[in-house]
Amino acid sequence: MEESNNITSKNIVYCAQSLDGYIAGPNGEIDWLDTIPNPEGQDMGYTALMNEVDAIVMGRNTFDLVKSFDIEWPYAKPVVVLSHSMETAPTDFKDKILLEKGGVQEVLSRLHDVGYHKLYIDGGLTIQQFLSADAIDELRITTLPVLLGKGIKLFAELDKRLWFDHVKTDVFLGQLVQSWYIRKRG
Amino acid sequence: MEESNNITSKNIVYCAQSLDGYIAGPNGEIDWLDTIPNPEGQDMGYTALMNEVDAIVMGRNTFDLVKSFDIEWPYAKPVVVLSHSMETAPTDFKDKILLEKGGVQEVLSRLHDVGYHKLYIDGGLTIQQFLSADAIDELRITTLPVLLGKGIKLFAELDKRLWFDHVKTDVFLGQLVQSWYIRKRG
Repeated sequence: MEESNNITSKNIVYCAQSLDGYIAGPNGEIDWLDTIPNPEGQDMGYTALMNEVDAIVMGRNTFDLVKSFDIEWPYAKPVVVLSHSMETAPTDFKDKILLEKGGVQEVLSRLHDVGYHKLYIDGGLTIQQFLSADAIDELRITTLPVLLGKGIKLFAELDKRLWFDHVKTDVFLGQLVQSWYIRKRG
Repeated sequence: MEESNNITSKNIVYCAQSLDGYIAGPNGEIDWLDTIPNPEGQDMGYTALMNEVDAIVMGRNTFDLVKSFDIEWPYAKPVVVLSHSMETAPTDFKDKILLEKGGVQEVLSRLHDVGYHKLYIDGGLTIQQFLSADAIDELRITTLPVLLGKGIKLFAELDKRLWFDHVKTDVFLGQLVQSWYIRKRG
């Protein structure tokens, strides 16, 4: 959490994982995320998160995944796509995304300059890259009651231990355990 | 969960993990488990578990680890040590442990025959071996608010998804999130 001119910047991870720490199956399967009946459309803090952040930061893989869904563009906030290979946004997305590349601190510094201070960091590799730079201030992780057995991991190896403070835990739909953590620094 | 002659057999995992799913650091470090102040000696369900089970099943590594602690033998219940290499129990442990080897179902069948039906399954490899045989009926997992970054994993890869029912979640010491799950079969 970085403060300057009374503006608090923070980077928030909000995601779902299996009990064994996967965010998707080996071929990107996310069917298991919608298995628990949710008759009242409980949003598990997603709307509150979206209202709280200035922008969403995601990697190229997550952008491609969202694009592949046959739905309207789901984000009301600016989306920053991190990509080293994409030079310009695809035609249909020119007014929807901002392309960025470079190191985490470099990207953050440019986003702060354009007024994006509270960021929702999304996508496995992007989350891992930010954690590796110790640039994540909050984790809001929802654990589903399944061992997937294999797939794409939420966390990668890190060079140092990162301690967090547990803020709260909520259980949704009787099955999903959502815990909030704030990074404990210094 | 297997029932015969009105006796319910079940195998329970009770363990602590880091946020990123490690049960110990890369060299077996468990110092991080005792970092959260616990002035009233909250036992987080350990005594209740011990009263509930007939025996503890652990691998050779866990046995060696417990032996290495300079403390009195901590178990009031029979301890079953799984080992393919140990032929006889070390002299000081002849009345404390029972040696077993073989496949999970084979071991379970022999333990049921001697009246051990409710089992506390402990140790990373043993837990993984039992999960791989779909022989775990309950998970009671306590998550500490730290990303260790590397170490010994709680879960290994599995050939199939295993769904559980979330029973309850308790937060201990404001920091430790303990969730109970029961295996959902059929």
